[in-house]
Amino acid sequence: MPTLSVFMDVPLAHKLEGSLLKTYKQDDYPNKIFLAYRVCMTNEGHPWVSLVVQKTRLQVSQDPSLNYEYLPTMGLKSFIQASLALLFGKHSQAIVENRQIPHGCVLVMGNIIDCKLTPSGWAKLMSMIKSKQIFPFFDIPCQGLYTSDLEEDTRILQYFVSQGFEFFCSQSLSKNFGIYDEGVGILVVVAVNNQQLLCVLSQLEGLAQALWLNPPNTGARIITSILSNPALLGEWKQSLKEVVENIMLTKEKVKEKLRLLGTPGSWGHITEQSGTHGYLGLNSQQVEYLVRKKHIYIPKNGQINFSCINANNINYITEGINEAVLLAESSEMCLPKEKKTLIGIKL
Amino acid sequence: MPTLSVFMDVPLAHKLEGSLLKTYKQDDYPNKIFLAYRVCMTNEGHPWVSLVVQKTRLQVSQDPSLNYEYLPTMGLKSFIQASLALLFGKHSQAIVENRQIPHGCVLVMGNIIDCKLTPSGWAKLMSMIKSKQIFPFFDIPCQGLYTSDLEEDTRILQYFVSQGFEFFCSQSLSKNFGIYDEGVGILVVVAVNNQQLLCVLSQLEGLAQALWLNPPNTGARIITSILSNPALLGEWKQSLKEVVENIMLTKEKVKEKLRLLGTPGSWGHITEQSGTHGYLGLNSQQVEYLVRKKHIYIPKNGQINFSCINANNINYITEGINEAVLLAESSEMCLPKEKKTLIGIKL
Repeated sequence: MPTLSVFMDVPLAHKLEGSLLKTYKQDDYPNKIFLAYRVCMTNEGHPWVSLVVQKTRLQVSQDPSLNYEYLPTMGLKSFIQASLALLFGKHSQAIVENRQIPHGCVLVMGNIIDCKLTPSGWAKLMSMIKSKQIFPFFDIPCQGLYTSDLEEDTRILQYFVSQGFEFFCSQSLSKNFGIYDEGVGILVVVAVNNQQLLCVLSQLEGLAQALWLNPPNTGARIITSILSNPALLGEWKQSLKEVVENIMLTKEKVKEKLRLLGTPGSWGHITEQSGTHGYLGLNSQQVEYLVRKKHIYIPKNGQINFSCINANNINYITEGINEAVLLAESSEMCLPKEKKTLIGIKL
Repeated sequence: MPTLSVFMDVPLAHKLEGSLLKTYKQDDYPNKIFLAYRVCMTNEGHPWVSLVVQKTRLQVSQDPSLNYEYLPTMGLKSFIQASLALLFGKHSQAIVENRQIPHGCVLVMGNIIDCKLTPSGWAKLMSMIKSKQIFPFFDIPCQGLYTSDLEEDTRILQYFVSQGFEFFCSQSLSKNFGIYDEGVGILVVVAVNNQQLLCVLSQLEGLAQALWLNPPNTGARIITSILSNPALLGEWKQSLKEVVENIMLTKEKVKEKLRLLGTPGSWGHITEQSGTHGYLGLNSQQVEYLVRKKHIYIPKNGQINFSCINANNINYITEGINEAVLLAESSEMCLPKEKKTLIGIKL
């Protein structure tokens, strides 16, 4: 029996993520609140699932015509087609001209496209991207959960396509369907030339073969069934609309409650932001007060998931924010409210 | 609009795999046969799925108590426990002493454990592994599809555990359940020391976070349901038994048909091998004859998937083998039959 382990020189890896959630879980305060979940939550505090997903899951599992063979390395073809049409629109120039030949589930890199630039702002940015030869990488984490208008949420992509830009775009379809456990997504490469696109694809396929060989099927199959069926698609769109309206209502309520409490500062930025996640506009001292004294867990940058706020906790949360702001006001001059816009472009 | 693509220097990646299947697909000969599928096939020529899988899939999709939240990076805990018990036995020393804390779906590296060493052969190999400080990496691609006895198929692992070896073991659960499209598997690390095991786990978790963050759920959930329910487990074991008996019967028939045809050589090695895949014992010239002249697609090493042989094609295949052997006999002295044993250890 070996007396020494071959692993004796392996150091413990430092965990970068999850410390806020870990602290929250270790907190035994009964009314603790976590406002940083990645997924969209229901009013009852459970992860949201579009109702049409459950129906389709059952339908798919009962369908005797489906087999369970290995998927191609580059993904389920019908899924890729359906999600491309979702991303760019059915009549997109890039799809019609076959400029992005699709690849399913290749690489997903995180980034946030939630920037509210004016048309002239976009034009300036594009001009800068061109002149500095920057390569754009867009990430679409939850199309339809910003404005509930699927086209509106990705309009900027179509603009980049129409201007002849080359770019990468990753899209997750986990959050906007509520299928968090299947890791469904695509990576799209848009190139100006088909020959070079084939080369890029071949390199990416090599990576995918080395990493996972065959992507999993269930999530892609459910989403394809929904996107390909007009009735199911309609139900899904309706469910997105309800979620977005509910989040907007929550934001309005938060703003109104802060107004009624007389909380110093203007809180209009809360309702100006779209999507599940948004900045409260608190400084780090105020965030720390909420976490340490009120057991309301918020990331250091003050960006919270508004769908975590519901009728049961809204009073406690807004009163906590009010306290945090008043305390900071009394101790020092309040810092200007931060409002960050992150642009989904990787340099 | 950019005139040059940023991708202009990307070369086309050379595809290493799939050339035999590609040639087969391009062949328009009506009676072509492919004998190198990775998965177990039914008598009707479809990929085999254990019947209990379909039933469980439906049950899982109807279960209102299940949620679809992100799985932990290290996998579904109940799945890992169930598959570890399958791999090592419920009362394994390593499990009882918590010497392998489980990690789900971290890395799967291909290797074949189909070696038929005698107990003294294993003892010699172990002694060599110790003296040369070789690190063993076992791959279990289809436990239960060798002998249909789940314990027998992984007995050697328990022997390595009992001898205090440290090793990695990857196990795929796609083939022995017939869930090819969900990529279900685990990587197990066996270490002599818990502290060092935690360090290795933390490093692997970092890799998994960078590569996929959350593993997919459906396959793991179906398999966990089957392994945790004695009635379903019994049905699954029965289905494995039927498959293995069927393959053994096919091998017996192939051997008998070659005997009746008077094919030169001894063909006992065909029935001496267990599992879906086995060596025909043909040399490269004979394999080439079968592919080129008879449209029977066999990998160059002569290892075929015996479950691809059924009542519809067995005569054509055995007659083809007979022709290939006779032709080689008449043209030159026949090379000795190869019988390879590959050991699932990575140096």
